[in-house]
Amino acid sequence: MTRALSVASSPDFRPGPNPRVGCVLLDPEGATVSEGWHRGAGTPHAEADALSKAGASARGATAVVTLEPCDHSGRTGPCTRALIDAGVSRVVFAQSDPNPQASKGAQALRAAGVDAVGGHRSAEAAELNRAWSFAVTHGRPYVTWKYAATLDGRSAAVDGTSAWITSRAARSDTHRLRGECDVIMVGTNTVVVDDPQLTVRDSDGRAVAHQPLRVIVGERPLSGSHRIFDDAADTLHLQTRDPARVLEELHRLERRHVFLEGGPTVAAAFLRAGVVDEIVAYLAPALLGAGRFAIGPLGIESMTDILRFTMTDVTVIPPTIPTDEANIRVTMRGSVQQHNEEGPYICSPE
Amino acid sequence: MTRALSVASSPDFRPGPNPRVGCVLLDPEGATVSEGWHRGAGTPHAEADALSKAGASARGATAVVTLEPCDHSGRTGPCTRALIDAGVSRVVFAQSDPNPQASKGAQALRAAGVDAVGGHRSAEAAELNRAWSFAVTHGRPYVTWKYAATLDGRSAAVDGTSAWITSRAARSDTHRLRGECDVIMVGTNTVVVDDPQLTVRDSDGRAVAHQPLRVIVGERPLSGSHRIFDDAADTLHLQTRDPARVLEELHRLERRHVFLEGGPTVAAAFLRAGVVDEIVAYLAPALLGAGRFAIGPLGIESMTDILRFTMTDVTVIPPTIPTDEANIRVTMRGSVQQHNEEGPYICSPE
Repeated sequence: MTRALSVASSPDFRPGPNPRVGCVLLDPEGATVSEGWHRGAGTPHAEADALSKAGASARGATAVVTLEPCDHSGRTGPCTRALIDAGVSRVVFAQSDPNPQASKGAQALRAAGVDAVGGHRSAEAAELNRAWSFAVTHGRPYVTWKYAATLDGRSAAVDGTSAWITSRAARSDTHRLRGECDVIMVGTNTVVVDDPQLTVRDSDGRAVAHQPLRVIVGERPLSGSHRIFDDAADTLHLQTRDPARVLEELHRLERRHVFLEGGPTVAAAFLRAGVVDEIVAYLAPALLGAGRFAIGPLGIESMTDILRFTMTDVTVIPPTIPTDEANIRVTMRGSVQQHNEEGPYICSPE
Repeated sequence: MTRALSVASSPDFRPGPNPRVGCVLLDPEGATVSEGWHRGAGTPHAEADALSKAGASARGATAVVTLEPCDHSGRTGPCTRALIDAGVSRVVFAQSDPNPQASKGAQALRAAGVDAVGGHRSAEAAELNRAWSFAVTHGRPYVTWKYAATLDGRSAAVDGTSAWITSRAARSDTHRLRGECDVIMVGTNTVVVDDPQLTVRDSDGRAVAHQPLRVIVGERPLSGSHRIFDDAADTLHLQTRDPARVLEELHRLERRHVFLEGGPTVAAAFLRAGVVDEIVAYLAPALLGAGRFAIGPLGIESMTDILRFTMTDVTVIPPTIPTDEANIRVTMRGSVQQHNEEGPYICSPE
């Protein structure tokens, strides 16, 4: 399973409607017959990839898969059928398929006489597809709100300048995270004021081959002159400020993971609607004392309504150029306390 | 020297006018004869402490000291004289004495025929007395500004409530840092609004035996009814808003390390005056979206004037009670870049 989890994390995966999956075929002596992994929607599933590499050697093999094999026909045929047809005798999987359309894979295998057991290292496998699992379970994309600020919570100076609060290394890290999502989202105001291109670029500043969908939210009409409308990636302007409607439309488009980059008004709207599932804050050891806030008003008047989160990671990002300082990346998810209280600002359950 | 540095860090040291010093006497075979350390102003110096424990065994010994022995008579006689009189044949010290009044100790020892060499592990020894070294070199106390805030830089909600933004463990850690200073400072507004006691309490909430001086800055007259005027510690109200005058007065009182706890106006005044030498930020993974800022306006209009610092430590403080979340403590000092530019907001050089 270690190897299956490893190939599931392959860098040639394209984030989109489908989850990351890895599959290792083992012969009865435990030797590896073949390895396969899914590269994104429209490409073979991990099981099919491994089976095609194995050919006739798949007969009698054990398939070790990070996710319960699917039993439905989507863009490709059901994996259960492919495993049964290839003569695989046993399937060991990690995460049970949370997708209601795709479930009952283990049941189908057993009905065909294939031994199928799940749950081995399921937590690791689930973390690998955290956003996807959330999306198929909850019927809306997982939302990661990312912001960059000084330690006093400012995202721009009084005159609107913000280049650059965070270090080059922190900005490069943001591109890495953008590349793990299938939507990058901003509000109309950010388009007008900052005119970002919102593409995923590598450490040399070159746009990567596969770009997430760029989504603008807000009712304000925009001319096509902004950089976000260039041909580097697809762009969608959703003329609404209602987070629920935005996420409904993106779910319809089979988008699983939104990287929300603000500004403060859009971020506040999503937080107030309770649809921010993860926050990634890049913090620079600097002070501005005034200027644009990272986050707009949340309707919180008193400490009893403070929005609390659980930190899942704190990383110091060392500088890569001499004029930069080390920055901090803090990752947070909704806290247990809030889920229990079921208050108005509950972040989505983990 | 490892042992000398270790005893210099003894928990029974009282922060005040004097530095931490450790001294180990070794016989000619290198075996330990005795160990001594300084416990604060009015108590024997480390050398005297070690010599008194050694008695006649000090003759011919080597004294390993973390700081160059003093050659002046203050509250106690010069250590150079005590070492010479005891017949110590060699002195190895780490940090050279930065105090202009106390220097030339090595010279006095050599003049008396005692071999004296310095500089061994001087960086570690200097870090041990960072605030004291700064104060005696620059003629003013070292200033650590501490604040606690949400990740969006808020120190209180709209209605003024702030209990508690940070975790119990973070607040307990603040008491530990208070106890390393000899002044705890706030502005008159904090006294009126928050009415803090500003004492150092242990993890059970009990006041420790030795308390720093509580200092209030600001021109607003105060009645004696506030908790800061109780008999738990001494309190001084300096009726000025000028940081230079405040630090001048505290230097005259032989105070070496100010723990500045705000509020935002006082902190901004000290930052604008360029006399904040260290910042300790306790950050809670929480958002308020509105309310009191951790820091008031700094006169910064554009990114070119942003105040940057170098992080010297980032620590995740785990929660000690189930209802708390982990917090982050970020420690920063003035950045190299700023010292070189010599701009208006330079933090003190390291």
